[in-house]
Amino acid sequence: MISVDDATEVLNRFSLDRITSVKLKDSFGRVLAEDIVSGIDVPSFDRSDMDGYAIRDRDLDGRRFKLVGEMHAGGDLEVTIGEGECSWVATGANIPDGANPIVPVENTEKIGDYVIVYEPGKESHISERGCDMKRGETVLRRGCIVNDRNIGILAALGIRDVPVYDAPTVAIIATGDELARINDVNSMTLSAIVAQSGGSPVFMGTATDEISHVKQKIKEASECDVIITSGGISSGKKDLMPIVVSELGEVLFHRVKMRPGMPMLAGVIGEKPILCMPGNVTSCLVCGHVFLPAMLRRMAHLPFVGMGDVRRARLSETVVSEYGMRRYLPVKLVDGVAYPTFKGSSLITSIGYADGIVAIGEEEVLTEGEVDVWVL
Amino acid sequence: MISVDDATEVLNRFSLDRITSVKLKDSFGRVLAEDIVSGIDVPSFDRSDMDGYAIRDRDLDGRRFKLVGEMHAGGDLEVTIGEGECSWVATGANIPDGANPIVPVENTEKIGDYVIVYEPGKESHISERGCDMKRGETVLRRGCIVNDRNIGILAALGIRDVPVYDAPTVAIIATGDELARINDVNSMTLSAIVAQSGGSPVFMGTATDEISHVKQKIKEASECDVIITSGGISSGKKDLMPIVVSELGEVLFHRVKMRPGMPMLAGVIGEKPILCMPGNVTSCLVCGHVFLPAMLRRMAHLPFVGMGDVRRARLSETVVSEYGMRRYLPVKLVDGVAYPTFKGSSLITSIGYADGIVAIGEEEVLTEGEVDVWVL
Repeated sequence: MISVDDATEVLNRFSLDRITSVKLKDSFGRVLAEDIVSGIDVPSFDRSDMDGYAIRDRDLDGRRFKLVGEMHAGGDLEVTIGEGECSWVATGANIPDGANPIVPVENTEKIGDYVIVYEPGKESHISERGCDMKRGETVLRRGCIVNDRNIGILAALGIRDVPVYDAPTVAIIATGDELARINDVNSMTLSAIVAQSGGSPVFMGTATDEISHVKQKIKEASECDVIITSGGISSGKKDLMPIVVSELGEVLFHRVKMRPGMPMLAGVIGEKPILCMPGNVTSCLVCGHVFLPAMLRRMAHLPFVGMGDVRRARLSETVVSEYGMRRYLPVKLVDGVAYPTFKGSSLITSIGYADGIVAIGEEEVLTEGEVDVWVL
Repeated sequence: MISVDDATEVLNRFSLDRITSVKLKDSFGRVLAEDIVSGIDVPSFDRSDMDGYAIRDRDLDGRRFKLVGEMHAGGDLEVTIGEGECSWVATGANIPDGANPIVPVENTEKIGDYVIVYEPGKESHISERGCDMKRGETVLRRGCIVNDRNIGILAALGIRDVPVYDAPTVAIIATGDELARINDVNSMTLSAIVAQSGGSPVFMGTATDEISHVKQKIKEASECDVIITSGGISSGKKDLMPIVVSELGEVLFHRVKMRPGMPMLAGVIGEKPILCMPGNVTSCLVCGHVFLPAMLRRMAHLPFVGMGDVRRARLSETVVSEYGMRRYLPVKLVDGVAYPTFKGSSLITSIGYADGIVAIGEEEVLTEGEVDVWVL
């Protein structure tokens, strides 16, 4: 049996560096696979930040200017202003050559063909060419996650196709003759964990407890970057996964010092990881939470923050653990108290209503009082 | 001018209660629109939790049992055991009628046709019919978000189609003649905020600064639940949105006591909300963050937790605000220090690299020291 930490370490060997290109609108949430270098100046011209009048001199409190033109955002009319002249400029418009400052419209009064400037203000209200981003500047780095703010940087540069790391595709296979009689729970819970870990789940359906059928399913799944199975790893006569994995590839570990989830197996088939989760629904979910986010987020080049959101809570009861096994106790949090929901690893309601897990160390046999709850 | 809080209150009037049905595999992350009542007992039979031998008596330490059959998960063979007899039962298999307990295989030894039981144990290792969920039991409530755990409950019940609240569809229109010359940033940033707020963004493209064109775009967008525009709401000659909204419907508010974002307008057209954001890219993003999550998450029936993740940080410099206006200051967090990134509301780099916003109250004019950072 291997410890949870050592098992995690074993899975660290798997990585993925496949790069793909997505349309800008589909890049939200993806990870940049290349540095982004600006190909243009932004803005590409000296731009007015205000609706107002462009003049040539700052020190003109109370003076009159002759209005000689209008410049609108997107317009292609070029207005030239001389001494004592002004031009209307709209927010976002380019400005007459050499103009500075723009006097906001609220600080002026228009009388006939003339504009009276009451207060030119201290600011120029001009965004100079390239002041937002300069051509040749590295504006975003490889590894950066595209979010609602920096997608605006990509948009401003006119980038249409964004180089991103490909999400790992994860084949999900449920095994077991019992699936002819009971509903497949594990494929759904595993695919949800895969999706929220940055992977792309691919449902492969179910396999019976026949070696040839399981092998066939794994063969069908070989296009995917990762294979996850559930069931068939205990000590029963129909627990075929150890045989199947060792025949098709190599078993990396089998049985982990954890409860629930002890029977878990991991292996490698054709350089790709295969994770064989227990068939018991709560064991399968716990193994998924313990091992998949770290592995899949790394393959997706997403940051991994361990147990993520951790809250302190008082355990509602004393919990007895088995020495040498890390215990993962699903709990429901109510007003700062963590109520264990575990009833048995084959029951989905053991974790179905849980909103956190308490991880109890291998050397703790009695746990009570304040604990860290890993919020799911 | 209206305060941010009053503007938020105005937008509270909009709701959506459209229900749709999605396949179980697509239900992850959605909100249940109906209570889920179990139509079956789970498990639907008395089920073995162990690989082992089913016997009829608990008090039989060290005794020999005649092996009379095997019951496998999913098998349809029924084995009957009498006194002194046992049957192999696999994990997940149903058990011989009246059998109790299941003796785990590791506590037994098989010799020929006989099984020696060393330690029957205290537990039955049987999950009785309905012990996970009972037929007729309400197992999940309307309003519950489908997550990686409770999707297992839906799967265990064999539910294929899940009744969920429909996500609001949000038409996004960028307006302004300048979009002929500069890249549209606002449609991308707004659609990202819409997507992460539980809405479904629909790109409508750009409209010029002509009333007829803007009206045409709004008409095309009328199938959507919400319309969001950017641009055309300042005091310039081509700022048409106040006219367009009042002609097609009703203006609810125009100009909000906030910086950036002051020009923002909201209205109602045919009972649907239209939010007209400023054209300046950082103003538009700030208005999006301030107003969209609350409105869209409510329409999507998702919980809304206000500013969400808030962290204390030390402001790197003293910030001067305008009295009476709520200031939203984009900041970059580095080692517990919040560095303002704002350079001007028309520059995307004012917020493109920010990872938080500091909200400064209407009555604060000088802000320094420790502040709350609303993490984006």
